[in-house]
Amino acid sequence: MTADASLIDRVKHDGFRSVTAETGQPDGAEFPVHGPADVAVACAAAEAAFDAYRATDRESRAAFLERIAEEILAIGDDLVVAAMRESGLPRARLEGERGRTIGQLRMFASVVRSGAWLGLRVDPAMPDRQPLPRPDLRLRMIPLGPVAVFGASNFPLAFSTAGGDTASALAAGCPVVVKGHPAHPQTGALVADAIARAVVACGLPEGVFSHLVGPGNDLGAALVQDPRIAAVGFTGSRGGGLALLALTQARPVPIPVYAEMSSINPVLLLPEALKTRGAALGAAFAGSLTMGAGQFCTNPGLVLTIESEGLDDFVAAATEAVSGADSQVMLTTGIHAAYEKGAAALGGSADVETLARGGEGNGCTRGQAMLFQTTAEAFLADKALGHEVFGASSIIVRCRDEAELRTVLGGLEGQLTATLHMDDADAELAGRLLPVLERKVGRILANGWPTGVEVCHAMVHGGPFPATSDARTASVGSLAIDRFLRPVSYQNLSPALLPAELRDDARGDGVPRLVDGVLIVN
Amino acid sequence: MTADASLIDRVKHDGFRSVTAETGQPDGAEFPVHGPADVAVACAAAEAAFDAYRATDRESRAAFLERIAEEILAIGDDLVVAAMRESGLPRARLEGERGRTIGQLRMFASVVRSGAWLGLRVDPAMPDRQPLPRPDLRLRMIPLGPVAVFGASNFPLAFSTAGGDTASALAAGCPVVVKGHPAHPQTGALVADAIARAVVACGLPEGVFSHLVGPGNDLGAALVQDPRIAAVGFTGSRGGGLALLALTQARPVPIPVYAEMSSINPVLLLPEALKTRGAALGAAFAGSLTMGAGQFCTNPGLVLTIESEGLDDFVAAATEAVSGADSQVMLTTGIHAAYEKGAAALGGSADVETLARGGEGNGCTRGQAMLFQTTAEAFLADKALGHEVFGASSIIVRCRDEAELRTVLGGLEGQLTATLHMDDADAELAGRLLPVLERKVGRILANGWPTGVEVCHAMVHGGPFPATSDARTASVGSLAIDRFLRPVSYQNLSPALLPAELRDDARGDGVPRLVDGVLIVN
Repeated sequence: MTADASLIDRVKHDGFRSVTAETGQPDGAEFPVHGPADVAVACAAAEAAFDAYRATDRESRAAFLERIAEEILAIGDDLVVAAMRESGLPRARLEGERGRTIGQLRMFASVVRSGAWLGLRVDPAMPDRQPLPRPDLRLRMIPLGPVAVFGASNFPLAFSTAGGDTASALAAGCPVVVKGHPAHPQTGALVADAIARAVVACGLPEGVFSHLVGPGNDLGAALVQDPRIAAVGFTGSRGGGLALLALTQARPVPIPVYAEMSSINPVLLLPEALKTRGAALGAAFAGSLTMGAGQFCTNPGLVLTIESEGLDDFVAAATEAVSGADSQVMLTTGIHAAYEKGAAALGGSADVETLARGGEGNGCTRGQAMLFQTTAEAFLADKALGHEVFGASSIIVRCRDEAELRTVLGGLEGQLTATLHMDDADAELAGRLLPVLERKVGRILANGWPTGVEVCHAMVHGGPFPATSDARTASVGSLAIDRFLRPVSYQNLSPALLPAELRDDARGDGVPRLVDGVLIVN
Repeated sequence: MTADASLIDRVKHDGFRSVTAETGQPDGAEFPVHGPADVAVACAAAEAAFDAYRATDRESRAAFLERIAEEILAIGDDLVVAAMRESGLPRARLEGERGRTIGQLRMFASVVRSGAWLGLRVDPAMPDRQPLPRPDLRLRMIPLGPVAVFGASNFPLAFSTAGGDTASALAAGCPVVVKGHPAHPQTGALVADAIARAVVACGLPEGVFSHLVGPGNDLGAALVQDPRIAAVGFTGSRGGGLALLALTQARPVPIPVYAEMSSINPVLLLPEALKTRGAALGAAFAGSLTMGAGQFCTNPGLVLTIESEGLDDFVAAATEAVSGADSQVMLTTGIHAAYEKGAAALGGSADVETLARGGEGNGCTRGQAMLFQTTAEAFLADKALGHEVFGASSIIVRCRDEAELRTVLGGLEGQLTATLHMDDADAELAGRLLPVLERKVGRILANGWPTGVEVCHAMVHGGPFPATSDARTASVGSLAIDRFLRPVSYQNLSPALLPAELRDDARGDGVPRLVDGVLIVN
């Protein structure tokens, strides 16, 4: 099956070809270029499917998510091979990413079953209350409506067609219209077909899931402006995210946009840690920086240090490791070109020293790792030094003392993560920095690297603007389901009209309820 | 004490006088006109207070909220008298509103103590997991930062200086800068001073609360554009809310805006209910419509019916009751003028029949109740007939059948509430309408009137745009605290650095925690 077999094949299209990342050549299969007419078809189908889909019971919806996972696994190695060709990422990474994709679909299945996301609240009537009786009030969360999901290029499986946004929106009860990333149409089509098979197997309406592809920006713009779309999930560039935000806020009815956009993920090297293991930290840092050609939202693009013993060891080891790093195929020629431009701008800045260049790229899409260094003074004076360069580029900012470090932190934009490398003897300093970091980021980690993003319940992959467009949520982990829900209150409705989970006879079903302000777990 | 005694007295101001609602005359005390310099002072103080205030333990923060309630009560009758003069609302209503204000402060104190709002999540490390160990991840909600609250004119106590927005923001740990409503500066100053006394009594930094007043729009515009303001709570007109939304979304860092703006609160009269008690419903409807001169966000401004037995009884009884309703003092001359204009436009529409006019106003601020009637066809043809007319005006829309009723419902904008008047024999029809209503409103009620908004846990005072700017939340009841929080995740932090409630030794403190996906209540 190809994408042509989907719901969206009613309109004739021009085609575009899948590109092989390593060569930058459009030598893969041809895919249709979807346009506004396809958006209208997909959104109408999503809208038509919404009431039936949101009415599914928790077990059915969980089984659907698990079926999607099975269908993706059933594609077999073809999926990994397609993703390797289209993304340039290595096999082990993509097999791991497939596992993550399957894992998060299954996690959301268990979340759906738990029912905690329903946020049930019951305030029973008090007919004898003075001076006025209290009515019976019951609350649950309901899904927002059809959700537009934008596939990301850097995770062709876990943040794309069946990625975290799709999984959490489907878990919430929202039909999904994916705007597939044009860098991996073949991978996207394989996954979209797997989801379509799961839709059929579970007897759900076809419009629960649609997949649109095309190389330009018009498709996405039309999608987020469709009045039937109720929310948007996006992972990508700052420019792309801000454009979607502007379009959605200018709609007659503005809608929530969850755009994960831009982060340089400061890594703070505290003095005692530097003293005891500066060189080891330098080597480990380079490993995190260069993994996957640096193409992670959580890539450590900024190292903040205070002048201290061991800092030179860190710099020397990082410089050596980055210098020895092989060039790596980047996701697209466009991303590669933007990386080269961004790294060249950093390196060309008067107050920035180029510490290391990795192995040279000898193809049009191979990225060369880069390490830079500057002073806090220079970093504070030039905002551009703090902008994300998507790829294996990082800048070390040397601060004279804690006060200067705090000034640099205070001037940073919102970030996904902040990392502390520290020893016990750094704890007091770390304690003073924590309140500053909490206001800047979504996740604070100690003695690790930000590039691993665990899919679990306590993960926050999110953070203040411009890391994301909405710091109140997260796009990885079970918290992500809350993005697609809103509360509805039912007052004095008869049991027959109440949603099943809000009836008195549903008590004891294991779903948590706040009853008169008291949380009851079963 | 007057507002001059607050933090904001460092700049010399022009003055404006408190207006007596009944006469429209500015014959009350004079108050300073705050401007951008005052905004800067208040926001700097709020920012300076934030870290200390958010670090308060739950018991201290709860005690502070309770102390505010006590200080408001301690003002005594002066507060009720001032509010009566400035709002034109009767004593019983304002005494009730004071009780509601006190009650919601105390409710938020109990919410703060419960700790559920912290949203604690713990995913313990799995050092032996294959292929990679799992780090230790812990999550809690933290407050967003200083919050700007706009007092509403129609609830000079419960939705104003110490109203629901202020109470929920303070409960979340956010300092508050109130932009007091210029229609009740004396009432606002009395309440602001009470809060200031509570701040001092509880040993909190002065900047936890500030109160700014002035008659124009510049003050509010400056406030929401201050970079230290992290969120906005607003209850008022659609124009005002949209203006704030535009200003905040155009900031370098956009911020959440919780604007409660516009709703006509459809009341659906189902056929069996009409048949058995059309006349009684008509009289009761008129009571809800004219209460408080109709100046409620949840005022029943739209009645939807299907042609059926008993409808004429309803119309006759409602017409008689509205015709007999006395005129009532409205909140301000501006609101009165807008009401007259809106009602005249409705009545002047070619396809709208004026059923009833209440007692004539003989003062410049007395509003005359109005009841109109039209066909579904006319209502669908002219969007203006569905716009809110703030005051005691309502329009009955007669639909030929269920299909036409559904078309009218489908075309409605988002609403705070929808009301069903129904008998058991209407249950099937009601069941078919519920999914439509759920997508349009925040609260669905049966056999009551929307004008009572219970302050409790299961209340949703909110709804899809333009009822509010953010349907994911509610501005009345305990859910409102979530508006001012965002999640932060802590990875592999040592116990000494973790927030107290996330340490292992905090288990058993009665605060709910999601541990490895399992909700544990104590």
